[in-house]
Amino acid sequence: MQAELISVGTELLLGQILNTNAQFLAQELASLGINVYFQTTVGDNRLRLLLALQHATDRADLIILTGGLGPTEDDLTKETLAEFLQLPLAVVPQELEKLQKMFQRNNLRWTENNAKQAAFIPGSVILNNDCGTAPGMAILNRNKGYLVFPGPPAELKQMYYHYAVPWLKEGFCSEKLERIYSTVLKFTGITESGLENILADLFHAQKEITLALYVKPGEIQLRVTAKAASNTEFQEKTGALLTEIRKRTVGFLFAEAGETMTEIVAELLQQKKLTISTAESCTGGMLAARLTSIPGSSAYFNGSIVAYNNSIKAKLLGVPQELLTKFGAVSKEVGRAMAEGSRKMTGSAVGIGITGIAGPDGGTAEKPVGLVYIALATPEYTICQGHHFNGDREAIRRRTVSKAQYLLWRYLKNYANEES
Amino acid sequence: MQAELISVGTELLLGQILNTNAQFLAQELASLGINVYFQTTVGDNRLRLLLALQHATDRADLIILTGGLGPTEDDLTKETLAEFLQLPLAVVPQELEKLQKMFQRNNLRWTENNAKQAAFIPGSVILNNDCGTAPGMAILNRNKGYLVFPGPPAELKQMYYHYAVPWLKEGFCSEKLERIYSTVLKFTGITESGLENILADLFHAQKEITLALYVKPGEIQLRVTAKAASNTEFQEKTGALLTEIRKRTVGFLFAEAGETMTEIVAELLQQKKLTISTAESCTGGMLAARLTSIPGSSAYFNGSIVAYNNSIKAKLLGVPQELLTKFGAVSKEVGRAMAEGSRKMTGSAVGIGITGIAGPDGGTAEKPVGLVYIALATPEYTICQGHHFNGDREAIRRRTVSKAQYLLWRYLKNYANEES
Repeated sequence: MQAELISVGTELLLGQILNTNAQFLAQELASLGINVYFQTTVGDNRLRLLLALQHATDRADLIILTGGLGPTEDDLTKETLAEFLQLPLAVVPQELEKLQKMFQRNNLRWTENNAKQAAFIPGSVILNNDCGTAPGMAILNRNKGYLVFPGPPAELKQMYYHYAVPWLKEGFCSEKLERIYSTVLKFTGITESGLENILADLFHAQKEITLALYVKPGEIQLRVTAKAASNTEFQEKTGALLTEIRKRTVGFLFAEAGETMTEIVAELLQQKKLTISTAESCTGGMLAARLTSIPGSSAYFNGSIVAYNNSIKAKLLGVPQELLTKFGAVSKEVGRAMAEGSRKMTGSAVGIGITGIAGPDGGTAEKPVGLVYIALATPEYTICQGHHFNGDREAIRRRTVSKAQYLLWRYLKNYANEES
Repeated sequence: MQAELISVGTELLLGQILNTNAQFLAQELASLGINVYFQTTVGDNRLRLLLALQHATDRADLIILTGGLGPTEDDLTKETLAEFLQLPLAVVPQELEKLQKMFQRNNLRWTENNAKQAAFIPGSVILNNDCGTAPGMAILNRNKGYLVFPGPPAELKQMYYHYAVPWLKEGFCSEKLERIYSTVLKFTGITESGLENILADLFHAQKEITLALYVKPGEIQLRVTAKAASNTEFQEKTGALLTEIRKRTVGFLFAEAGETMTEIVAELLQQKKLTISTAESCTGGMLAARLTSIPGSSAYFNGSIVAYNNSIKAKLLGVPQELLTKFGAVSKEVGRAMAEGSRKMTGSAVGIGITGIAGPDGGTAEKPVGLVYIALATPEYTICQGHHFNGDREAIRRRTVSKAQYLLWRYLKNYANEES
């Protein structure tokens, strides 16, 4: 069962709006086990829409159109589909009456161009629009299905769940649907290629289970997908494989239920009844902002100090002046002193110190842009790691925050953290 | 000049990610006067990508591919384009070396599959990736242009602006571009409809000048677009209109050359030789992180204190215990004391204090979720504004930071700031 999406609207081609409908429909169709191999976006243009309909009809069983159902001249999706299928379009009296009543009820002025929203291809199923004026349409033609939705996302979603899914499940593809389940594992502290190497032999081990890696900011995701009759069957099918993946990725695998690293770390801090604080230079408070993005973060977060210049590092964090003079603000020694100072000044169990050069200026041959020291001070030990991050200022700061969270996570999980 | 976008990635077809690249490129190409008539999304599949390339090459002058440049087996965009053009793909030694050095510098283990990121079609222009590992590629073949970008949006944007636009403007389509010029004005402290009301009669005043409003986080943008032979002609054409707009929007219009509010505020602080610090509770360091996101921020930023719990507010900011007891941590009085404490403790000219309830928990009937006090302490005066922001935790925190920057901007511009 293959479907294609055709999004209609010049505003999409100009980038004035983001195509969230395509993502919504792609997710929903995947969960029904309907494959989507192509998505196309065309403007409000009859000839180009005819071309897109021809390509889609050649390739797919189900063609889904969104947008272009409104009352204006620009809106030509139904007209063009009718022309493509060589079928007429006729106003349905009950639908026209419904529309006119809606206008009355909302004190809107009726203009004749609105009547086209009540026109449909004879023999099609009319899909009610509970949130707007333009109904949708479902048609079976020469063994191909066509679904026509309005463009506004709220109207489309409502119509999809309430009227299109029943048409799909009970009508058009009742025989053809398979069920697809998937789960996502998240990793950090390892590259995509590193992970691929570790798991290489598992990628094609079981034909009916698909593994796919995705790089996201600060993490790698592994999606495990399989066809199954139920979630229980999916878990049985993938259980052994997941156990093997877990075994091979200890120290990198941090979430199995969609949690973010920030959520995982917050959960661990609360479990262990530990409090945390940060002393940040180049990240300027980004790590503190991240740690407090979680509801209820006051349970584990007391406060933080953003120490940009040296006098603040000395005054508010108690970093000894001689360390600053001897090693410079961006040094392993100052990183350590910041992490320890942060613990002391805020009375927290764990302190994280960050000092580095985010650039683009301020780098030297000895201490180039991207050099960052991240220190972790705990009741048991203090360590400091030196890193050299790539990218622009924003990327360097973002990577620093991710790495600091990784260091914290390893500590909370009792994995070894090495100084480097 | 017609272009087509082909987005490559099974994660797009499954709806796992939203196709923001298509919107970004559509907007940017429109601003260059390049028409986009079709956008297509295909999965990581050789045959279907070949088909999409065939259709796009039949119809367009410029074909832009995004995604599928990574090191894994799934990544096949360059390979498939080479096959389509019947050209080879060869590893470029300098690029390979660059890549291996980057791995070394970041302490990443090199694996052989990474080498394919250094492979290009001979004769193509290599587009540097300043934020990641996979470079892009620009090719001219039989009078058609092909641009290949990595999928991660941050990498794509950087590459587009720095390497692709010059290739387009000075090379591929220097002759063919219709000249469209536009300028963007940015406003804050006013709603979209408020701005629309103020400017209503100007929207259709001049047929050859288009005005369009866009709502962005924390600001409203007004894009003024016109065709012109040169930038000078554009400025002559739009000069009178812009003067009228400026006159009507004093106190809201903050940028005319694409600058962010953070950049504008940084510039003003430096001009006035003022330093700044923050004392943040519910925003947890977000404002400090924003203020330090600018290169060279050490010129005006000393440090900040994130004071989540009351003992930190007392100890590190000197907020009197009786204010905390009498009015509570979320109060106008404590907001003021935090702003003033922040000035004192960091020796800065200006201090901003933020205390509020970002939710979802912690609200009461008297002090509901979304209640935030933002205080500004300056050498001349201290004021504190109470606000009630809508939205979830993230939205409330983001809106608070924007409003604090607005307050600071008004002070730096010598506009009146009222307590509320």
